Amino acid sequence: VHKQHLAELQKKLDAMHPADVARLLEALPLNQRLLVWDLVKAERDGEILLEVSDAVRESLIQSMDEAELRAAAQTLDTDELADLAPDLPPQVIEEVMLSLPAEERARLQSALSYAEDSVGALMDFDIITVREDVKLEVVMRYLRRLDEFPDQTDKLFVVDRTGTLKGVLPIKRLLLHDPATVVKDVMEQDIVTLRPEDKARDAASAFERYDLVTAPVVSADNKIVGRLTVDAVVDYIRERSEAEVLGLGGLEEEEDLFAPVIKSVKNRWAWLAINLVTAFIASRVIGIFEGTIAQLTALAALMPIVAGIGGNSGNQTITMIVRALALGQITRENAKKLFLKEIAVALVNGVIWGAVVGLFAFAIYHSVSLGVVMMAAMILNLLLAAVMGVLIPLIRYRLGADPAAGSSVMITAITDSGGFFIFLGLATLFLT
Amino acid sequence: VHKQHLAELQKKLDAMHPADVARLLEALPLNQRLLVWDLVKAERDGEILLEVSDAVRESLIQSMDEAELRAAAQTLDTDELADLAPDLPPQVIEEVMLSLPAEERARLQSALSYAEDSVGALMDFDIITVREDVKLEVVMRYLRRLDEFPDQTDKLFVVDRTGTLKGVLPIKRLLLHDPATVVKDVMEQDIVTLRPEDKARDAASAFERYDLVTAPVVSADNKIVGRLTVDAVVDYIRERSEAEVLGLGGLEEEEDLFAPVIKSVKNRWAWLAINLVTAFIASRVIGIFEGTIAQLTALAALMPIVAGIGGNSGNQTITMIVRALALGQITRENAKKLFLKEIAVALVNGVIWGAVVGLFAFAIYHSVSLGVVMMAAMILNLLLAAVMGVLIPLIRYRLGADPAAGSSVMITAITDSGGFFIFLGLATLFLT
Repeated sequence: VHKQHLAELQKKLDAMHPADVARLLEALPLNQRLLVWDLVKAERDGEILLEVSDAVRESLIQSMDEAELRAAAQTLDTDELADLAPDLPPQVIEEVMLSLPAEERARLQSALSYAEDSVGALMDFDIITVREDVKLEVVMRYLRRLDEFPDQTDKLFVVDRTGTLKGVLPIKRLLLHDPATVVKDVMEQDIVTLRPEDKARDAASAFERYDLVTAPVVSADNKIVGRLTVDAVVDYIRERSEAEVLGLGGLEEEEDLFAPVIKSVKNRWAWLAINLVTAFIASRVIGIFEGTIAQLTALAALMPIVAGIGGNSGNQTITMIVRALALGQITRENAKKLFLKEIAVALVNGVIWGAVVGLFAFAIYHSVSLGVVMMAAMILNLLLAAVMGVLIPLIRYRLGADPAAGSSVMITAITDSGGFFIFLGLATLFLT
Repeated sequence: VHKQHLAELQKKLDAMHPADVARLLEALPLNQRLLVWDLVKAERDGEILLEVSDAVRESLIQSMDEAELRAAAQTLDTDELADLAPDLPPQVIEEVMLSLPAEERARLQSALSYAEDSVGALMDFDIITVREDVKLEVVMRYLRRLDEFPDQTDKLFVVDRTGTLKGVLPIKRLLLHDPATVVKDVMEQDIVTLRPEDKARDAASAFERYDLVTAPVVSADNKIVGRLTVDAVVDYIRERSEAEVLGLGGLEEEEDLFAPVIKSVKNRWAWLAINLVTAFIASRVIGIFEGTIAQLTALAALMPIVAGIGGNSGNQTITMIVRALALGQITRENAKKLFLKEIAVALVNGVIWGAVVGLFAFAIYHSVSLGVVMMAAMILNLLLAAVMGVLIPLIRYRLGADPAAGSSVMITAITDSGGFFIFLGLATLFLT
């Protein structure tokens, strides 16, 4: 009976799209996952490995021997192979590379040489090229003789004898114009071209803005080397936005849901360690004022409010500035204006929320001076949050660093320690 | 001289892609923005309004009178008009609607009736339909007679006399097969179709998984009503991921960089108010233990560490669970397994980080019992964080709510108040 079940499951798997098999594998605990993985037809292993998350891919590859991996790798295109390569054992890559024809081997080597977030790492080599001096009917006949027509092809690339890109022939024009027209007369020349070393992020923006389906990738001397397709761009956008959300949540990378505990601990280690250091610093700031707290314990109960709201407010400013930097909206001219605006927002917020927390402190501890100190500390900490919320990402950007990464930890550290220092410092000066 | 400058600027604007003009407008302070907006040719107003962010669109629309808005609206397609409609004054919409031919008016009304995050709100009506009993050469001739060929067309829709979808004819097959072939013999029938009321999120997943460029949208009785294109999907994915990041940063919506201060204050108000309430609660929890703190002020300096690390750890768990829920990876069967795993991770982390903070407390205050209480509180708060980090999103999901929204605020509130209560409670029991 068990065998019969497996046979049925295998049938179902065979009928599923590789992306759907990948989803299924990701949702299964390790032992069941490997059981299902064994049922997948060997010739589909490669395409499914490409679809699963990095963490799950690792668990699948560990279960395969070298021969299986080699067989899986050999079913893939050069660009796909390049995507998978970093996760494969080096000797498998080497053997696969040796088995490739010279041209493909060269392509694979160059694809492997591009940085992870570059156009070169995302592009494929499925390009159809035509010459500019032929008629559209000749192009049509040429296409009909091809045994393969790459997915997502919305344009053909017009090149000369040396492979230099002269323009593109949108399929649309091929279909709409008289077959007797010459390519040169209908090709587009004002086109978006990419370079392999361009940042994937910028390429994605171009696809989004100009509603592209494909774009040619050319070398420095304008020779065609590949193409970027919208499906690769969609995957990239998704992965990046996921990485961003995971990063904001404090995870280094996406986690295999059923990873061993020790792996999960490792994935969360760095964030906790950094936060622990900042917490220790904040703790020592409070330590300075233990004498003041001993005299007035109400301060201990009120101080987290000042620090917490400062952190929230600083994160709001940083989120806005990081987004504006990513969209290229911040210039030398408007930076000052933005800075003043954020300070104005902080002042307004400081007065409003400062009054609220001041009244809260007065209501509970019946001390006007405590309420006033609370309000003053709130205003000052929100101003600190605004200033640092603008400066941190701008300085990181100017220094060439990613303005988003770690900004949130930094601002929180500053508004925590700063908030404690401001509040307890004012209290030491005016209340004791 | 000034006039000459403006003329030059106008020339540059005319040569720019609408998306690029939109970017420029977003990066300019209000007075300069309106100056540039006046220079933009009136017939381009509509397409540029579609490209700018919601906040900036509002500022541009406010600067236009009804006649200008009507003129801008009249340059748009029905589906674009539907996107812009919510931001236009009702009387403008009404007048534009009256000026439309009956068929388009019906389309606009139905497009306006779909929920914001549905396929119906994203689809367009640029469909080319063919019959299944004609030859490919007839299709080719038909296409050549069209004066317009919609962008992103990778397939034609095969329908019968009643508009019922019978299949799709990929352009690829049209080009590769013999012109004498009949549509029916080469059309694809195993296709992804969408319904107008489908969630945009699910449609985006389908585009991502199956690498689609377009997909037909059909009614309940399988009649074609429109199509969804990958450029709309890319815009949707971008917007959603941006909204997610903004939400995590505590902003209600994307902010016009140069919005008046009062608008920015409003956009940040809700998040600060919610956090203030949770901060007040945490403050009152500490208030309960003021007596203990008066006896041992070291507690005041150490308590933010316990609360802070608990919050970080809980956010890590929640981020992972929310992502797994979004990917549909959590089932009734594996939920228990996940729960146990998170508890195990929390225990390991608790012992490690608890030992570190315990040693920190001992090193500074030279009290073994204080170190032990600190370690115990850390372990317990991380366990609380893990339990609530799994339960909050799962319960919200089970209740049909968005598991992500507000989860971070909730877990932080719980680990703050909970952390203070556990640490100060243990200290009260064992240290005083």
